[in-house]
Amino acid sequence: MAQATFEEISASDFFYRNRDIAGFTNPSRAIFAAIRELVENSLDAAETSNIPPDIYVRLSFEGEATKETQIYKLRVEDNGCGIQPRFIPSAFGQVLYGSKYKLKQMRGTFGLGGKMAVLYGQITTHQPAFVTSSTGMARIYQFRLMIDIQRNRPIIIDRKVITNKEQWHGTIVEFTLEGDYLRAMPKIIEYFKQTAMVNPYANLTFVDPKGRLYKFIRGTTDMPEPPKETLPHPYGVDVELLQRLIQITSDKNMLDFLRHHFHRVGEITAQKFLIFSGLITASCPKHDVLSQEQITWVEGKPTCSRCGSEARLSKSKNPKRLSHEEIVRLMQNLKKFKEFLPPDASCLSPLGEELLKAGITKELKPDYLVVHQRKPSTYAGHPFIVEMGIAYGGEIPKKGSFTIYRFANRIPLLYDEASDVAYRVIMDMNWRRYKVAPDMPIAIVVHICSTKVPYKTVGKEFIADRPEVRREMANALREIGRQLQHFLSRQEHVHMEKRRLGVFSKYLPKIAQFSAKLAGKERLPDIDKLLKSVQKYGEEESQHSEKEE
Amino acid sequence: MAQATFEEISASDFFYRNRDIAGFTNPSRAIFAAIRELVENSLDAAETSNIPPDIYVRLSFEGEATKETQIYKLRVEDNGCGIQPRFIPSAFGQVLYGSKYKLKQMRGTFGLGGKMAVLYGQITTHQPAFVTSSTGMARIYQFRLMIDIQRNRPIIIDRKVITNKEQWHGTIVEFTLEGDYLRAMPKIIEYFKQTAMVNPYANLTFVDPKGRLYKFIRGTTDMPEPPKETLPHPYGVDVELLQRLIQITSDKNMLDFLRHHFHRVGEITAQKFLIFSGLITASCPKHDVLSQEQITWVEGKPTCSRCGSEARLSKSKNPKRLSHEEIVRLMQNLKKFKEFLPPDASCLSPLGEELLKAGITKELKPDYLVVHQRKPSTYAGHPFIVEMGIAYGGEIPKKGSFTIYRFANRIPLLYDEASDVAYRVIMDMNWRRYKVAPDMPIAIVVHICSTKVPYKTVGKEFIADRPEVRREMANALREIGRQLQHFLSRQEHVHMEKRRLGVFSKYLPKIAQFSAKLAGKERLPDIDKLLKSVQKYGEEESQHSEKEE
Repeated sequence: MAQATFEEISASDFFYRNRDIAGFTNPSRAIFAAIRELVENSLDAAETSNIPPDIYVRLSFEGEATKETQIYKLRVEDNGCGIQPRFIPSAFGQVLYGSKYKLKQMRGTFGLGGKMAVLYGQITTHQPAFVTSSTGMARIYQFRLMIDIQRNRPIIIDRKVITNKEQWHGTIVEFTLEGDYLRAMPKIIEYFKQTAMVNPYANLTFVDPKGRLYKFIRGTTDMPEPPKETLPHPYGVDVELLQRLIQITSDKNMLDFLRHHFHRVGEITAQKFLIFSGLITASCPKHDVLSQEQITWVEGKPTCSRCGSEARLSKSKNPKRLSHEEIVRLMQNLKKFKEFLPPDASCLSPLGEELLKAGITKELKPDYLVVHQRKPSTYAGHPFIVEMGIAYGGEIPKKGSFTIYRFANRIPLLYDEASDVAYRVIMDMNWRRYKVAPDMPIAIVVHICSTKVPYKTVGKEFIADRPEVRREMANALREIGRQLQHFLSRQEHVHMEKRRLGVFSKYLPKIAQFSAKLAGKERLPDIDKLLKSVQKYGEEESQHSEKEE
Repeated sequence: MAQATFEEISASDFFYRNRDIAGFTNPSRAIFAAIRELVENSLDAAETSNIPPDIYVRLSFEGEATKETQIYKLRVEDNGCGIQPRFIPSAFGQVLYGSKYKLKQMRGTFGLGGKMAVLYGQITTHQPAFVTSSTGMARIYQFRLMIDIQRNRPIIIDRKVITNKEQWHGTIVEFTLEGDYLRAMPKIIEYFKQTAMVNPYANLTFVDPKGRLYKFIRGTTDMPEPPKETLPHPYGVDVELLQRLIQITSDKNMLDFLRHHFHRVGEITAQKFLIFSGLITASCPKHDVLSQEQITWVEGKPTCSRCGSEARLSKSKNPKRLSHEEIVRLMQNLKKFKEFLPPDASCLSPLGEELLKAGITKELKPDYLVVHQRKPSTYAGHPFIVEMGIAYGGEIPKKGSFTIYRFANRIPLLYDEASDVAYRVIMDMNWRRYKVAPDMPIAIVVHICSTKVPYKTVGKEFIADRPEVRREMANALREIGRQLQHFLSRQEHVHMEKRRLGVFSKYLPKIAQFSAKLAGKERLPDIDKLLKSVQKYGEEESQHSEKEE
């Protein structure tokens, strides 16, 4: 009988074999993805240290590869926090090694993009990548690197140390890759444009293979608060995470364990939860052990609801002593308990209504614009905020369908629009109710920020259809839809009013002249007054007719 | 200045953190994905050994987890080739370890599904998985396993060996997981139904948590040819793969290297390619070194096109001596050379028109059905075949849009339809040209088989929009669309004809009676003859009117 043979492959090898899933599907997408991943790393590196980002990207032609593809050299420079020398080789030459595995709003999520770009460059051109970095200390470090794909380890080809006279900090990455720039160009330019729009504190420079310079100058040096790292929210915890927390904790009882390792769990909430889940008991000096219902919380203290005396809490277990079964029950109870506070959104950095407005106005110069930011919400324990804007008229094209701009953690998403939950929400909306037709010049902007954006693909092309996210988007859309509707009907009235007044202002002077002549008077009656009274009447009427509709 | 801190995570950890991308997005999808991944492994395991698969799946209720989810025990038994005991722990407890990393048509591609199911079970219920397997030899091996996610290694809890008296071969996997069966049920049942449809040689049994039995009995024991492993096609090769092949080869010259490691490269093709890429030279005794154009191939031998004498080929290099630059050039030349044969599809196992027809007929009982199999094609060096069918009427619902069935390597794809390239091809088709309206009762079936199905997600939900795949699908669709159009216009004529004949057959007897009476005759004239002549006339007319349209 035939036998199955087994082999182990490295994480590098996995993504090498399956680059479709990381966004490197074809030469055009690959070159887009490479630029995008490195720019996003650079933005993250600058923001981490609260430095207004200066990012310089140059793509230069190196030669023909096949009939449809060319070899390019890609160079990305930033002024970010830099990378310590001992981390550099793995940060660019080892898949699943990175600084992004945290509960923190970042552009990167998978710790994969930069390495995938280098890996793709290597498998298409077989040249090493060149990385220069300094954290602003005395030295600058330069590495020439390749990736040992089968072992998932960096290969250091050479290494140089230079004195850092000017306290430069930042990272420069340079490598060659095969690609199809001509095809990718519109998306790449669009990417820079939209990135500049939602990161107005960044300087972005792009020099394309023809030597054309695209420069996006910052409009402000006001940086958003750098996003903070958070603790996991109790609703999003699973057994594996519980176990890891138990492994690393130095807390000797469950009360401290809950307070120190979970998001927004204070002493009282922790006590309530421990009673709820039976991990501690509250007893009254008179009435023995109290059930949950028999406890009233007075000024944060459990008291017996019958006699009012303060209840005594039993000591909680050492978390390291929990059995497998107890850990599972703990996880289930964490999800069931109703009194945990919702995630705090201070770890999130939304764009804000002002920035959204400014960006859209600059880009589209619409006749009307409304933006809306939802309150923080949560999916699987991760906080997120949805922001949406709708714009009408101006330079927005009429094309039979809406123009949609999608952003996630301040990065534009440009591929696979129809798969995105935002697209589906927009399509599912009953637009007729809002007097909106698909052939109107309308643009919709969606931004979601989260400590973990629920991407459906490793290539970060689109957002998964999580019910919580869908709901927030639908609500935001209804809100801005209603406001657009008001604008549209107001606009219609203004239009009708203008036409009506036009008629009056055309004939009234003639009637005035004629009747003055008829009456034998020399001075004409005051038409302006008349016109004004007509105007009022007209306004009332148009409002009236609206009600009848 | 803030410093970025780096950490390494294991492949297990990566998929644990990002289960969305592997299809385990929520409790409903997770239970679907777990069943699906194990069933597909079982089908592969049986087919590898050419055994008609017998697969038994039982899902049983174990208790409540949260308000919306429950704990289930999942058990999947098969009669496949079994797994050798030394491979069992890693095959179920180590991500990126498997038997699927081959150029061979298989349901699995990522070597990830089974482990993800076990991993998901572990993080939601923290119970070990129970694996029993035998290859049909003297012993049956049983393992209780967990996964050390942080280290990506299996933990063997215990291990038992039993005497295999009945030469049983196969694998049994059992573990608990949290899920939402009620929500997943329709998809799960649909999954079994469609799997049975395209694997008619398999017995599938599913017992659901309510004890309901779903049984799909095989209709045939004829197995398709087991798919063969192939060599990589020269058009799909990159530098990394070339290097790996050079590393493992024992060939001492490029000629043998090309012949032994690439798909459909024989001696003559290899020679032509080596001359094309300048790796060997052909010289004529009289005319010195010949350029490519100066060579005529006579009976597979290079001859000088001027004097006709056989050219002498220089010895080709040892592949292990190629420099980096030469390897890169080799890769580029492999892609440029026009004379490689297209991939041989003998390594593919399409459904075939008969099977497709039988499946659709059984399921939908349509009034009309046409299927079409495209010739083998290739993307990035991987051969693939597209098969399509279109069915009309019968039990196909009218719902304002077509019903689409998608299959890839004999597995049904049930989620994220709108993201699939097949969906886009169907939507982009100009159906009006084929006299087809979206409200007609029409079902379309698409099957793609390949040694590497270009999934866009690790969860194998949908096919990426590769231009080569899109083109094949569009061509298949046009072909079946044309045939459907013929059927529809024929049907319309039949309908018109019937109505016309109805009028005649209603009035002709009366006219005959009346005129017989009038003429004083007792025998009525032969109406049938008359009716027949009318019928012909009617046919002609309706054909005529069609041309005018």
